[in-house]
Amino acid sequence: MIETKLDIQENPNKKAKPDPDKLQFGKTFTDHMFTMEYTRDKGWFQPQIVPYAPITLEPAAMIFHYGQSVFEGLKAYINTQGDVQLFRPEENLKRLNRSNARLSIPPVSEELLLEYLKELLSLEKDWIPRAEGTSLYIRPFIIATEPSLSVAPSKSYKLMIVLAPVGSYYPEGIHPVSIQVEGHFTRAVRGGTGTAKTGGNYSGGYNAQEKAADQGHAQVMWLDGVEKKYIEEVGSMNVFFKIDGQVITPELNDSILEGVTRKSIIELLKDWNVDVVERKISMQELHQAYKDGILEEAFGAGTAAVVSPIGELSWDDETLIINGRQTGELTKSLYTTLTGIQTGKLPDPFNWTVQIK
Amino acid sequence: MIETKLDIQENPNKKAKPDPDKLQFGKTFTDHMFTMEYTRDKGWFQPQIVPYAPITLEPAAMIFHYGQSVFEGLKAYINTQGDVQLFRPEENLKRLNRSNARLSIPPVSEELLLEYLKELLSLEKDWIPRAEGTSLYIRPFIIATEPSLSVAPSKSYKLMIVLAPVGSYYPEGIHPVSIQVEGHFTRAVRGGTGTAKTGGNYSGGYNAQEKAADQGHAQVMWLDGVEKKYIEEVGSMNVFFKIDGQVITPELNDSILEGVTRKSIIELLKDWNVDVVERKISMQELHQAYKDGILEEAFGAGTAAVVSPIGELSWDDETLIINGRQTGELTKSLYTTLTGIQTGKLPDPFNWTVQIK
Repeated sequence: MIETKLDIQENPNKKAKPDPDKLQFGKTFTDHMFTMEYTRDKGWFQPQIVPYAPITLEPAAMIFHYGQSVFEGLKAYINTQGDVQLFRPEENLKRLNRSNARLSIPPVSEELLLEYLKELLSLEKDWIPRAEGTSLYIRPFIIATEPSLSVAPSKSYKLMIVLAPVGSYYPEGIHPVSIQVEGHFTRAVRGGTGTAKTGGNYSGGYNAQEKAADQGHAQVMWLDGVEKKYIEEVGSMNVFFKIDGQVITPELNDSILEGVTRKSIIELLKDWNVDVVERKISMQELHQAYKDGILEEAFGAGTAAVVSPIGELSWDDETLIINGRQTGELTKSLYTTLTGIQTGKLPDPFNWTVQIK
Repeated sequence: MIETKLDIQENPNKKAKPDPDKLQFGKTFTDHMFTMEYTRDKGWFQPQIVPYAPITLEPAAMIFHYGQSVFEGLKAYINTQGDVQLFRPEENLKRLNRSNARLSIPPVSEELLLEYLKELLSLEKDWIPRAEGTSLYIRPFIIATEPSLSVAPSKSYKLMIVLAPVGSYYPEGIHPVSIQVEGHFTRAVRGGTGTAKTGGNYSGGYNAQEKAADQGHAQVMWLDGVEKKYIEEVGSMNVFFKIDGQVITPELNDSILEGVTRKSIIELLKDWNVDVVERKISMQELHQAYKDGILEEAFGAGTAAVVSPIGELSWDDETLIINGRQTGELTKSLYTTLTGIQTGKLPDPFNWTVQIK
């Protein structure tokens, strides 16, 4: 008998909501969180919504030693009808289980977890900011909790969902950023963990990120780990290029993360009859396109920024200035359409959104 | 003014010591632990020895999301004079700082940390088991504690040292194991985090480890991430081969961890006038040596097992049986000498050991 009944302990001490104009990313959390436990004999059990509070773990808990963890990120909005709205949450939950498989973490029920998330969001509805560009960021994550120094999968886990009201990614409007092509550090390689949303993929990139920041760039563009030649991702986003009217994004190759925004952009472009292709693209080819004057637009795509235009690419001693450092027309349309669908301001012909009544 | 004075809070509730014959690896911990905090304005501060107890962190603490963590592993013994004895602890502390640099974690004072560790060990001396093959395993580790979902280095950290009395790695005597050469999964690649002792390197290997175990093997042998051709490590150990009288270990290459046992073995072999070389070695070359009848011995080397002989290597459809599945003479000598020096049963001509009076 698996315990799946959600227990809700309401927080008697509600916090004041933050000033919507001063929201940062992921610093403020709501009054409640979701937690669920796993042991080998019980499976996933004890789903509960409890007051947001610190958690207590053994110093020997495996998460502190061997990095066995996965996470997801998605957003909730208040749509024009005043309902809570999610964007393709089932895609995030599917990916959570793909990440679990890669990290030897037992799978969760995607259906149940979505139900629990909906309950949490209903309870925290007042925390969802309504100003342009703001949202409630949802962070599900799983950590290994067994107190043991054995290098082996944990026998127990904790799954949590925390919620953070977040400000606009572009408080001064969408603007292109400068990116450094990273020649030394590697984000991921085939056979590694690059396709999974697991902690180590992110902290492993900090050295490169700091180097890029020191040189005045917003982020790094990652090349493949094998040949250091093919473009993979930009920062923690997928990447797209418009070359001579065609949109190109690196194909999924066992080291690139399969982004929900990436997938949605590809589907949107196909719907718009824009030529879009997933294939390998080398930095050399991109440079040639630039020299030929046919590199028209470039942008990152991910949940946090949705779409992030690239104004400048620094590659060894060269600087590629893209579209005169202006946001391209297609980039702009994708941003407007995606955020419009996500927030409910535009119709959703793809059935991507989920409303919580 | 940096606070470096160690505060000691003795545990009034001492636990019973475990049965030395039933010790497992890293499941039982001593009465005390060392903790120290870091913030950007204070640096590392508040070094203290406190009763071993669970720790409390925000659910948003960065360790749970982006894997920013490093660790070390070393052992303490009671030598024949009855003193606490460490083996090359300064090498572990140097590596801790190398790992810190790779993970964008601020460096620690190696000298101070060694002093704090000595204090902790003096207090916990009675926890060091004395039976053959047993020891006190020392686990220093650092975790990112800032409560923020930003993908960026944490602004605060916690360093801890926990101690675990551990049993003999070979309760039935040293014996060769069966290893599967891993063709798909990758442990690390140049430009990645393979040279650092960081959590993600370990949990990223669980899929491969489980696959090997399913097929009856004790561990995997990792090949390089670029060509999937050159031998890198075995499980979480460095690896050595004796071919036609010469000992070969893969050269450090920006993806292999620089093991303290590895380094000590190389120095020991040189002292013995055994031909030892650090260079690239492919699985193809190893196979050829096997076919030529000159692959004489093979073993893993690491802190936990010290030396772990390889009896059998499974590579695609082939099985390479090494030295008739017996522990080789050189492997045996290395094990006996290293453990002899570590425990103080043999003289230490290299000045590798540190005694705590």
